[in-house]
Amino acid sequence: MEFISGVREKEVLGIQEVISGNHEGRTVRMNGTVHTIRHMGEVAFVILRKAEGLVQCVCEGAAGDVDIKDLKEECAVEVKGAVRKEERAPHGFEIRLEDIRILSRPADTMPIPVNKWKLNTSLETKLALRPISLRNIRERAKFKIQEGIVRGFRDYLFSQGFTEIHTPKIVARGAEGGSNVFKLDYFNKKAELGQSPQFYKQTMVGVYDRVFETAPVFRAEKHNTTRHLNEYTSLDLEMGYIDGFEDVMDMETGMLQYVMELLRKEYGKELDILKAGLPDVSRIPAVRFDEAKKLVSGKYNRKIRNPYDLEPEEELLIGRYFKEEYGSDFVFVTHYPSKKRPFYAMDDPEDSRFTLSFDLLFKGLEVTTGGQRIHDYHAILEKMGKRDMDPKDIESYLMIFKYGMPPHGGLGIGLERLTMRLLDEQNVRETCMFPRDVTRLEP
Amino acid sequence: MEFISGVREKEVLGIQEVISGNHEGRTVRMNGTVHTIRHMGEVAFVILRKAEGLVQCVCEGAAGDVDIKDLKEECAVEVKGAVRKEERAPHGFEIRLEDIRILSRPADTMPIPVNKWKLNTSLETKLALRPISLRNIRERAKFKIQEGIVRGFRDYLFSQGFTEIHTPKIVARGAEGGSNVFKLDYFNKKAELGQSPQFYKQTMVGVYDRVFETAPVFRAEKHNTTRHLNEYTSLDLEMGYIDGFEDVMDMETGMLQYVMELLRKEYGKELDILKAGLPDVSRIPAVRFDEAKKLVSGKYNRKIRNPYDLEPEEELLIGRYFKEEYGSDFVFVTHYPSKKRPFYAMDDPEDSRFTLSFDLLFKGLEVTTGGQRIHDYHAILEKMGKRDMDPKDIESYLMIFKYGMPPHGGLGIGLERLTMRLLDEQNVRETCMFPRDVTRLEP
Repeated sequence: MEFISGVREKEVLGIQEVISGNHEGRTVRMNGTVHTIRHMGEVAFVILRKAEGLVQCVCEGAAGDVDIKDLKEECAVEVKGAVRKEERAPHGFEIRLEDIRILSRPADTMPIPVNKWKLNTSLETKLALRPISLRNIRERAKFKIQEGIVRGFRDYLFSQGFTEIHTPKIVARGAEGGSNVFKLDYFNKKAELGQSPQFYKQTMVGVYDRVFETAPVFRAEKHNTTRHLNEYTSLDLEMGYIDGFEDVMDMETGMLQYVMELLRKEYGKELDILKAGLPDVSRIPAVRFDEAKKLVSGKYNRKIRNPYDLEPEEELLIGRYFKEEYGSDFVFVTHYPSKKRPFYAMDDPEDSRFTLSFDLLFKGLEVTTGGQRIHDYHAILEKMGKRDMDPKDIESYLMIFKYGMPPHGGLGIGLERLTMRLLDEQNVRETCMFPRDVTRLEP
Repeated sequence: MEFISGVREKEVLGIQEVISGNHEGRTVRMNGTVHTIRHMGEVAFVILRKAEGLVQCVCEGAAGDVDIKDLKEECAVEVKGAVRKEERAPHGFEIRLEDIRILSRPADTMPIPVNKWKLNTSLETKLALRPISLRNIRERAKFKIQEGIVRGFRDYLFSQGFTEIHTPKIVARGAEGGSNVFKLDYFNKKAELGQSPQFYKQTMVGVYDRVFETAPVFRAEKHNTTRHLNEYTSLDLEMGYIDGFEDVMDMETGMLQYVMELLRKEYGKELDILKAGLPDVSRIPAVRFDEAKKLVSGKYNRKIRNPYDLEPEEELLIGRYFKEEYGSDFVFVTHYPSKKRPFYAMDDPEDSRFTLSFDLLFKGLEVTTGGQRIHDYHAILEKMGKRDMDPKDIESYLMIFKYGMPPHGGLGIGLERLTMRLLDEQNVRETCMFPRDVTRLEP
């Protein structure tokens, strides 16, 4: 009987192994994709692309049985050769090719030069060719940084006693409502795709006190803007026993501090590739919604048209104000008008036209919505009544209040938006692997 | 201007803080939900439920202004009192109540006794009341262990150079096909919910060499069985530059070893609550599909009805065989018939009726499907041709082969099934927070 007992050591080395081991002068094996080939008379430089980075291989004459002219870009290969120190090569070494084994060959040459440093193609083309355009060094660096954000989010919340949850994305109709929901037929019942794990994460606060989820959410927004996606990854947290929504802002700030530190420590290579700086999140200013509107109106000479709404341009100006006045890329805008918030938001007991809630703006773009939620059964019924909502539609959600819930609050972060602002991209599609928008369902 | 600078230390302590700090005899504050109240003449015992566990509070006479008779189960409270060593109490201490602050009250008493050790209610009732039945100590322990599995999966793969990806769940129609897909209208285009991130994870191997995703998948299976869900969490990985599908099995085994070790180290409390043992995964037997059928047929006197299919009962018997003969709860069954595998599976070059693929059975239940994939453009076109598939339907997927892909393979693990077998549950709904099945769309 054959037995499998775990990952076996392979002869083929990674970049880190070559760098950290004592391989100078020794013959090693490495694999990768042929990124570029440069012929310089008798010598050819073959650059391999690996997840970790690039590797320079030098071929003088032949490399085993393979004629270097038969090698094509995007061939997957395994090379064999001696390691030589070379300051000008990536990672400070090169491989003197002795042999190449071609593992696979492309059937055609790339329609766009993914091996160029910058893909000078339109966003439209990049997205249409996403399966291959992501192979570009700069394109893929963005999503490596996105990985770091999610990793930092989870790791920080684990350290703060949160439990990770997995909640359903196919949900019964009539939950939060609104027109921006995707509908589907679920075995002859009407169903929707979840716009947010809101009800479920609140439910799970009754179970684990503090919970988080990192999962897709779906919004059938009909507008095609630079900051909307119809499917995105939402970083959600919800926490019980809070003294106020300030506890939620504290938690987000702590999380952002942790994330930026993780990126600095472990994603420096990608930040360098993108020439991206990390924002200072040691302290984030917090300003009331009505106050923010006044500050912006005063400084930039802008009329307040609607005191209960924030226009995209106002968001930008608030961002600008806090950058100019306090040097901060982030600002918490608190006490949003009740009208603009869902029924489960807790109204400010001092003025019920406003809520105990907040948005976090990052360079003038909303990247988080959060706040304290109603936890009392009678209070939530009353608020639903005022909005002509029928408790029967969401009975299983109301169950948690009926049988007791601690005071709690939470937030949801749009991962792609956060990444977009961090990397100073102008379109949220740049920081979504395979974006879904009104006209885009593929790739 | 107010600034937010991270999580502030609170006066309210957690269980670990009380245990590890020097709090004996000192007055502390703790919060939690009233789990049970026991009146014993002059003395009342109030047990608090926290995410971390239970806390025993003792009330002699009054506790501040609160009459203990006013306290109800599922009240959220903050208590104040002196810590006293008490071997018989959970975690070895109790709180001598000096004051109670009631943070919230339930509107009604629980319809089922969630504070009992075992919820002696039917699965049907448990699921209908899921938002509150999950508060039961044993119920919630299951999902804490599930968290550990996902955490271990991710952490191990990070250590092995994998990159985490987020791929869309709304996909164009005509991908893998089959009847078990949920269809939806996407701005007047036909769309589906992804049954698997298969195409996307393969695509991302061309970008990052090794990738994983932990996300929901959707299957419109019409059968209501104890092992099927219509939405579940899939733990997916895909890796390039493999020498064969054995590399994928090696990776899964290494991952399982890491997960079991993590559960042993950090989830011992939950394993104890559920009296769950951890399986030995130091080595996992691997047997060919046709061989496994013969072994089972021989030992258990069972006729082989269809040499190209595995019936659920056969799976169970294979599980039993390897438990009896080799003491293993797991077994890899390899070389599945080509007919039973999707078009992208790589056929065995030695016998194209079979594929270079595997399932992992855990106590006789398939918890993983994996294998090597076709990476050559012409080969995949040829296989599609044999199955009368139209390349135009999946052009953006085929793009990756056209422009070159390394040899690769991967797997998908059903999280709820893995948890189910680990905890010896008889129904996969027991290990899904909010299961979706043919009749269940809520809660």
